[in-house]
Amino acid sequence: MSLDLTGDLVTLFRAVVDIESVSGGETRLADEVDTALRAFPHLRVIRDGDTVIASTHLGRAERVVIAGHLDTVPLAANLPSRQEGDLIYGRGTADMKGGVAVALACAAELGEPNRDVTWIFYDHEEVAAEENSLTRVSREHPEWLAGDFAVLMEPTGAKVEGGCQGTLRFTVTTTGVAAHSARAWLGHNAIHDAGELLTRLAGYEPRTVEVEGLTYREGMNAVAISGGIAGNVIPDACTLTVNFRFAPDRDEAEALAHCRELFEGHELTFIDFALGARPGLDRPIAQEFLTAVGGRARAKYGWTDVARFSALGVPAVNFGPADPGKAHADDECCPVADLHTCRDALLRWLR
Amino acid sequence: MSLDLTGDLVTLFRAVVDIESVSGGETRLADEVDTALRAFPHLRVIRDGDTVIASTHLGRAERVVIAGHLDTVPLAANLPSRQEGDLIYGRGTADMKGGVAVALACAAELGEPNRDVTWIFYDHEEVAAEENSLTRVSREHPEWLAGDFAVLMEPTGAKVEGGCQGTLRFTVTTTGVAAHSARAWLGHNAIHDAGELLTRLAGYEPRTVEVEGLTYREGMNAVAISGGIAGNVIPDACTLTVNFRFAPDRDEAEALAHCRELFEGHELTFIDFALGARPGLDRPIAQEFLTAVGGRARAKYGWTDVARFSALGVPAVNFGPADPGKAHADDECCPVADLHTCRDALLRWLR
Repeated sequence: MSLDLTGDLVTLFRAVVDIESVSGGETRLADEVDTALRAFPHLRVIRDGDTVIASTHLGRAERVVIAGHLDTVPLAANLPSRQEGDLIYGRGTADMKGGVAVALACAAELGEPNRDVTWIFYDHEEVAAEENSLTRVSREHPEWLAGDFAVLMEPTGAKVEGGCQGTLRFTVTTTGVAAHSARAWLGHNAIHDAGELLTRLAGYEPRTVEVEGLTYREGMNAVAISGGIAGNVIPDACTLTVNFRFAPDRDEAEALAHCRELFEGHELTFIDFALGARPGLDRPIAQEFLTAVGGRARAKYGWTDVARFSALGVPAVNFGPADPGKAHADDECCPVADLHTCRDALLRWLR
Repeated sequence: MSLDLTGDLVTLFRAVVDIESVSGGETRLADEVDTALRAFPHLRVIRDGDTVIASTHLGRAERVVIAGHLDTVPLAANLPSRQEGDLIYGRGTADMKGGVAVALACAAELGEPNRDVTWIFYDHEEVAAEENSLTRVSREHPEWLAGDFAVLMEPTGAKVEGGCQGTLRFTVTTTGVAAHSARAWLGHNAIHDAGELLTRLAGYEPRTVEVEGLTYREGMNAVAISGGIAGNVIPDACTLTVNFRFAPDRDEAEALAHCRELFEGHELTFIDFALGARPGLDRPIAQEFLTAVGGRARAKYGWTDVARFSALGVPAVNFGPADPGKAHADDECCPVADLHTCRDALLRWLR
């Protein structure tokens, strides 16, 4: 069985979904994608691990990058796919094999696109950032990702979502003195001290800010708390983990300083950091894209790989089939109409 | 090798310490204690599981119960015992094989005590209350524990500690609404809500109260907190575990009501409860004991098995060799002098 890129789009979509490709197990799907794309002489195909990159080289004035990841989160007894009315259910239907199927169909169909196109199908997106193959490719072959504009086909309900917010996490620990709880006055309770930190968080007023015409809402939230040694011991430590989601107008220094200011008097340990991405919607190529797909852009709140393109100087937007709220859900699904909407929009823009 | 109850007290103590008896593994020590006590015709010996009870039946006007547990917490590479100057180190030296050795020596020596005596050596004290053999004995044979006064030979530094405080634990959970942390406004953060509970605890003023001449200091403390689903999810629950240590003038209803009042507006789930014990020092037999041991009593803060005797109507005090602060410690130890002090006091009282 091989993938038929020029036949019925829904059939292609279900074939892609039914090739199981949980992160780390993408090889079979990558092989199928590789083989299918090599059948088209207008595409030059590179295989790097389980990442497949197909590109046109027509000497156009501009180059567009269109990307989607091949992997999914683990199954929830939700394969093979099944159709109910206008919805197709199954692991990966929302995140993001609809985008993959649309990109494959367009890559095959657009023999002479009006802009050169680089189609990227990559692996290990649903796991740690260091394993994400785009991390490796952007380090070893940044030229493969080069372009004037990028479209990441993550699920957006077939709307354009511009840029993305940044995210960082840190821990803050209160310390006390352990003692038997029957003699509490010999110790100092670190959990009690954490109350004051939580009060600061509860009273925090997150900023709402416009960046290049899109509205971003920030958020500063405790995502974990833990403390306690035993049921009869005054706890000597309590650790709070906080996640700050910040608009793309903040750079790293500013984002860290903002957290430190909120928790003045405490030491913060930053555990991860990912810069946001400006939507880049002020550029003509982005405006042309918006006109072609016939919509208005809204802000993307979750962090996505658009930030990688942004960091390489390539403005990027999210645009793909399916409701992002269904990503990773047991009842993950994609409306058939979204597949057609996205394909038609890309063809309109690039033909 | 058998235990020599009439020889050197320190030799007996080290022999008892060197028979490893972590909770659940008391059989060998119980066998040795059983065998050694049966050699004395003035004692009637009962064996029940790994509990050994030896008693005199001389028709005296009063009966005294003297008790100690045979088990220890797990080793910390601290056996066999070793002596450094006046201190003997090893697992169980403080909690509470000093008390056991003193009781064994006195049981052997007091062939004609001035009060009838019940010597109790029991198992499974360092584990859940339901496993403690005194729980079984007090349910199935409460008559074996009957008496006019009880001395529990837990470590007190050879001072008399009267009664004990009660202890209870409960959890209180704040609930929120889970959401992706990039869209925090769609959820409600349960960890942030816990701040207000911690503020109540931090501001709590524990009571200091006199009960029958002894001063007790209460305490209300968080001993654990946990919350959080994942680093990118607004937590929908945060659970706080609180330990209330209360003076023996509060009964169960009053202790629970006090906790409910502090956390008014929240539902509390009580997970364990142990009533305190009044010191009973207003009784003549207790006063005679104090005079004989030549000291003043102070309050016991930690919960001990004296509460079981108190619940059976037997006033009870704690009195045994070693610093209670060394109980369970890796450098657990007992001063040799404490062994002699406690033995001499018991002999003075009962001879």
